[in-house]
Formats: sequence, C-alpha cells, structure tokens
Amino acid sequence: MTQIDLKRPILDKNEKIARGNRELFAHHRVFVLDIMASPGSGKTSTILATIDALRDEFNIAVIEGDIASSVDAERIKAQGIAAVQINTGGACHLESEMIRRAVDVLDLERLDLIIIENVGNLVCPTDFDLGEHAKAMILSVPEGDDKPLKYPGVFQVSEAVILNKVDTMPVFDFDDGAFRAAVKQLNPTAPIFPISATKGTGIDAWAQWLADRIRAI
Amino acid sequence: MTQIDLKRPILDKNEKIARGNRELFAHHRVFVLDIMASPGSGKTSTILATIDALRDEFNIAVIEGDIASSVDAERIKAQGIAAVQINTGGACHLESEMIRRAVDVLDLERLDLIIIENVGNLVCPTDFDLGEHAKAMILSVPEGDDKPLKYPGVFQVSEAVILNKVDTMPVFDFDDGAFRAAVKQLNPTAPIFPISATKGTGIDAWAQWLADRIRAI
Repeated sequence: MTQIDLKRPILDKNEKIARGNRELFAHHRVFVLDIMASPGSGKTSTILATIDALRDEFNIAVIEGDIASSVDAERIKAQGIAAVQINTGGACHLESEMIRRAVDVLDLERLDLIIIENVGNLVCPTDFDLGEHAKAMILSVPEGDDKPLKYPGVFQVSEAVILNKVDTMPVFDFDDGAFRAAVKQLNPTAPIFPISATKGTGIDAWAQWLADRIRAI
Repeated sequence: MTQIDLKRPILDKNEKIARGNRELFAHHRVFVLDIMASPGSGKTSTILATIDALRDEFNIAVIEGDIASSVDAERIKAQGIAAVQINTGGACHLESEMIRRAVDVLDLERLDLIIIENVGNLVCPTDFDLGEHAKAMILSVPEGDDKPLKYPGVFQVSEAVILNKVDTMPVFDFDDGAFRAAVKQLNPTAPIFPISATKGTGIDAWAQWLADRIRAI
C-alpha cells in the first residue's frame, strides 16, 4: 500500500525532532505526558482533574491539539494554567515539530509538567514520538469493553490506561473483567486507573502514579 | 507541513479508483453507504438495527473496516447477512482500492444495498471518496455536544447525521439544542436522526431516509 511507503520518511523526520524535544525537556527537567483518546472520552476533563490534584506541588502547562477550535485551551486557561493551542488544520495527530514550536512560548525553566492533549483519535497518534516521557491513554466506558481488540496499538504504547466515566458502567453493558484481561494481554505492565473525571473519583491513584514519575526525573 | 504535500498523490489515486467503484455500483444498481464515527459510538449496532428495518425490502451486504479483529463482521454474519472484513493493518481509514477488492467477493447483481463501516475515526475517513453514493456519520451522546466544533470536516461531508445513545442523554450533560445549531451551521441540509440502536428507538425515520435514497437510484 502506497501509504506505508510514504509514511517512513515522515516518521524518520518526526523521530529526529522528537529526539531534540527530549533533550530540551531533559535539560529543563520538565516531565512531558502525551494523552491519547477518542473524541469525547473526557481528555480535557481528565486533564483538569489532574491539574487540580497536582497543582500545589508542581508547575503545570498544557498543550492542546485539535483539528479546529480552541475551546479546550480556553477551559484550561480559565483555571489559571498556561495553555498553548495547536490547530492541526485537518491532521489527525500531533507531530514532534508542532510540539517544538508550541514549547517555544512556554517558560520551560519554571515548569515541572507539560501535559499534551493529542487530537481525539485512537489510531494516528500511536505512531508519533513527540519526545514525551510517557504516553497515556483514556478509554471511556460508553466506548465499550472491546476496544483493546479493535485498537490494539494505542493500548500497547501507553504506559498507563485511564478508564473514564466509570460512574456510567450501570448504564452501559461494560464488562470490566473482559476489558482488564484484554488490556493485560496487550500490555501486561500498564496500570489501569478507573476514574470519573467530572465527579472527581479515582483521580488520586492516577495523580499519585504521575507524581511519582515526575519526581523520578 | 510535509504531510500535506505527500497526501495529494494518495488522494488522486484514491479518487481514480473511486470513480471506477462508482461506475461498478451504478452498473449493478447497488446503493453504497459509507458510515463514519468514533470508536465505540455504536456503528455496528446501528448497522444491525438498519438491517433489521430494511432486510424485508432490500438485499444487503456489509463491508467492515477495522484496524484489527473481525468481531464486527462476525456480528453481522450471525444475522445471516453477507459481510466482508477489511483489516487495514494500522491505517486509520478505508481507501477506494480496499473497497474495490472487498466487492470482488460480493454478488453485486443480487444486492440493493452495501453498508460500509469505516474505521472508528472522526478525522481520516472524511477525505477519502470510496465511490459510495452517500456518507453518513454517527455521533453518540456520551461524546458530547461540542464535537461539531472540534471535528467540522466529518459533519460537512455527511449527508445525514445519526445521534446515537439518546437514551443516555439524562446521564450526560448533552445540550441537544446547541448540538443541532452547530450541525446546522456546518451542514444546513443534513437531517439529524436521534436513535438508540440497541433499544431500537428512532430507527424508523433513519431507515425511511435510507430506503428513499436506495429506491431513487
């Protein structure tokens, strides 16, 4: 297929710039987390809840990736947190060069944590190294327990899996055991954090995992 | 950005094969519908409910596009409907050449309707003409009423918008008026069909719209 032949040079260029990003983040000792998820799984709500849990200890900024609009960046800024909006102009994922330009406007010396909200998409962001320390993903309960089978790549590259909207489990026919077994088969070491971002439940364990990672760099 | 320069030849090749598909479908008088949606929005359930409503009048087959697995095709086949599975091997959308190969195994002369279930993705399938008669999309209530703002492309190319899981509106903070206004701004002529695919509500109006389109070719 044509697409695969054309993808290699894009990925090579992306990886080169990602290495530069990684060196920059290491130099300034800022931890960078890339969050991937479907549209409407609650990425921005989860980021807001994470900020709430960690802002007393860490200085945080957010990079918002969207096809269009800046509503998410505005929600973050309304909480007094620095936010940079990237509009990809139709592209289905963020690339390391977009991140490189976005961090230019941030004061890296002052920051401990940058959270990147990738474009809502379970497929394309998987392949792109942004120079981040970790990728994490969110699945929301209404999307269904069969998603690891259908979108294995994103589960494989994520160091942590957040299961959002767990308060709606009674409404949907979500088999938690089947979901956990499927994730474990794809990614045996990734912890699963059940949360409700809008209700604030389960955030502590997730924030603790992230705080441990930030302190370790 | 590199990606945009490389995309043009892929789209040109795709359109050429799509034209061939379109001629083939016209020759056999089979109506082809391309359904696009996020992961977990209920594409397969909606297709199953649509089949239930239309199978007495029309001969139907389904082409299932997935990154991996064949669980959806198996759900369709279990209902006694011909289903062809396309595994894209990581690609985030279907292309016209994949459809060309999939229809080779179908008896087009016998069919009135082919429903294509695209890869779960609100971004990438938007740009790819498969030779279909119409694209339609599904948004599910848990994804949120702001999705037209964030993913305008898919709303613009869809001739009909299905709003699924409407039975869960009380659970989620979904503003139906805001959603309808946003869709109307992007696509003034597209009807919106509120349904619950698993409960069977609202299917009649959607199936009627589709039946009218099938009869018109």
